[in-house]
Amino acid sequence: MKIQGKPYRTIWPTTDGVAVEVIDQTKLPHRFETRRISTVAEAAHAIRAMIVRGAPLIGATAAYGLALALRDDPSDEGLDKAHDELIATRPTAVNLRWALKRICDAVRNRPRGDRAEAAWREAAAICDEDVEICRSIGEHGLKLLREIAKGKSGEPVNILTHCNAGWLACVDWGTALAPLYMAHDQGLPLHVWVDETRPRNQGASLTAFELGSHGVPHAVIADNAGGHLMQAGKVDLAIVGTDRVTRNGDVANKIGTYLKALAATDNGVPFYVALPSTTIDWTLASGDLIPIEERSASEVTHMTGRLPDGSIATVEVTPLGSAAANPGFDVTPARLVTGFITERGICAANEAGLRSLFPSVKS
Amino acid sequence: MKIQGKPYRTIWPTTDGVAVEVIDQTKLPHRFETRRISTVAEAAHAIRAMIVRGAPLIGATAAYGLALALRDDPSDEGLDKAHDELIATRPTAVNLRWALKRICDAVRNRPRGDRAEAAWREAAAICDEDVEICRSIGEHGLKLLREIAKGKSGEPVNILTHCNAGWLACVDWGTALAPLYMAHDQGLPLHVWVDETRPRNQGASLTAFELGSHGVPHAVIADNAGGHLMQAGKVDLAIVGTDRVTRNGDVANKIGTYLKALAATDNGVPFYVALPSTTIDWTLASGDLIPIEERSASEVTHMTGRLPDGSIATVEVTPLGSAAANPGFDVTPARLVTGFITERGICAANEAGLRSLFPSVKS
Repeated sequence: MKIQGKPYRTIWPTTDGVAVEVIDQTKLPHRFETRRISTVAEAAHAIRAMIVRGAPLIGATAAYGLALALRDDPSDEGLDKAHDELIATRPTAVNLRWALKRICDAVRNRPRGDRAEAAWREAAAICDEDVEICRSIGEHGLKLLREIAKGKSGEPVNILTHCNAGWLACVDWGTALAPLYMAHDQGLPLHVWVDETRPRNQGASLTAFELGSHGVPHAVIADNAGGHLMQAGKVDLAIVGTDRVTRNGDVANKIGTYLKALAATDNGVPFYVALPSTTIDWTLASGDLIPIEERSASEVTHMTGRLPDGSIATVEVTPLGSAAANPGFDVTPARLVTGFITERGICAANEAGLRSLFPSVKS
Repeated sequence: MKIQGKPYRTIWPTTDGVAVEVIDQTKLPHRFETRRISTVAEAAHAIRAMIVRGAPLIGATAAYGLALALRDDPSDEGLDKAHDELIATRPTAVNLRWALKRICDAVRNRPRGDRAEAAWREAAAICDEDVEICRSIGEHGLKLLREIAKGKSGEPVNILTHCNAGWLACVDWGTALAPLYMAHDQGLPLHVWVDETRPRNQGASLTAFELGSHGVPHAVIADNAGGHLMQAGKVDLAIVGTDRVTRNGDVANKIGTYLKALAATDNGVPFYVALPSTTIDWTLASGDLIPIEERSASEVTHMTGRLPDGSIATVEVTPLGSAAANPGFDVTPARLVTGFITERGICAANEAGLRSLFPSVKS
């Protein structure tokens, strides 16, 4: 997608071919800065520090990180060590594991001298495929939006989203936001309610930045507001992304997703989850088995933004001495999900639904 | 309750008897400052700017504001003008209307020369009664906590609360927090999950400050986290306050309360609302009739806290150019409320329940 008219992906190889560059998402929306990743340690740091985030982009970054590691040490031991370093960065997203496995599978039976180059090619392929997958998700989701628009007599379709499942979470397009970009580009009137998504404010910082950069009408709301807006009939559809979907259709996503799904169900608002099939964890029977990352209390107690002079500052909002807890994700039970929007189409949020689209996967 | 060992109410007459003082709640938790209110305009400003907030304290402040107005102009016209100025400050809380009516009723049939003093006495009586009412709410709620503690084998009872319904919202004790203070003082082990309560952060700033000042163990959480904590069995009970309860038991409270009530219901967690009977609006049949205050977008886009050097700063968190919406309250349907904790005891969240405790009220 574009920033100030210039097309970007969220991760790309440097022109000298020895590193990748990423957009530093911790600086958005206040600064647009890119950052060079030349080693596996830098890749692991970028994931852990959320310089890159979003399940698909975490996978892509980890893939390049493993490729970078193999340049220094293409041995089996080197591969395993780098794999373990990267997989430990974030416990909840399953794309991380998937991408690392894919690189390992692509190189393990090759001579050591070929491994780094093969891994690099595979990481690039993962990125290109992610773009294509997100484009497909967009096309399938667009049908839903068109259907809803039919009943709106030209009024904007009101969509609520949580966290950031836009192109900044992927390589391009996004998952939950891909249908919105397509609809907007095709002239379908839209208005997006952007949950600010405390504690890290990915909605207020990243989703609002993305939508604003692309010209999509939106309003940032407190995470508390979505239920009321649904009660008031101001939400036609909720779409979110996910970090991991289990075989039965349970959805791990940014903390607070479950609350919005409850409200959507209570108010008859369709609640869709958009995902690439790489986010499906066929090995897990249900969501209670997903590890939930507990993140730093400082994300709750401190908040970063712009001072009136344009400089960036971090303020502490809680009293000195108050503790804070910070679970990063929650699990939305499949029963609260209207459907999944995948690269192969839309399906029911259950095992039969998933298998109808992905029949050849073994769990 | 106490701050650094010194007992305070949230509102009190100055020693010269010509004004009231209040704690400036917009400065908490970073600064403890009091503010003098000498005129009806200052009282209206204090309510509108949320220097004072919380349904009972809004009522008490409005009562004193009307008394102050009568010192300047005790005519019927003066009374009506001041009444209208004060009632326009906040549309959702019903205590405001109740307190103003009570002052009007107390003075209207008196000679003009007596009105100001009578109003002052009545305002003081409203405050004293509020303290006693909150103490009673605490005692009734304490029984619930004791009952839950029985099944916890000495482990702390985990309570979730939203916004601030503590003593800072009242004259003393609080509504939702009154039972917690009593339980803590009596040695019952407690742990409180404090919703930060965006956008104004009354949980992170006021509730955490109150609980910390009194030594009650607590942790601040993002508003998004409560559902997950309930799913994980980490919440034994939710207690919140309310700005208005309609005859059928629907509950208007700080935006986001509805989402927590949905999660509580979904997880079998008891969800109680603590209220003085002055918060019941017998004239309204159901919650959809309650006006919901739309507040300034800047509460969503900006955030105030302490810089590392201890100074207070406000940062903007959203991108330049992003709109924001800010409904201040939502309505939790009575079906999601386990019960009401009032000064007369605990009842079911419906008209029969309310009438069982308050049989003589006419609607």
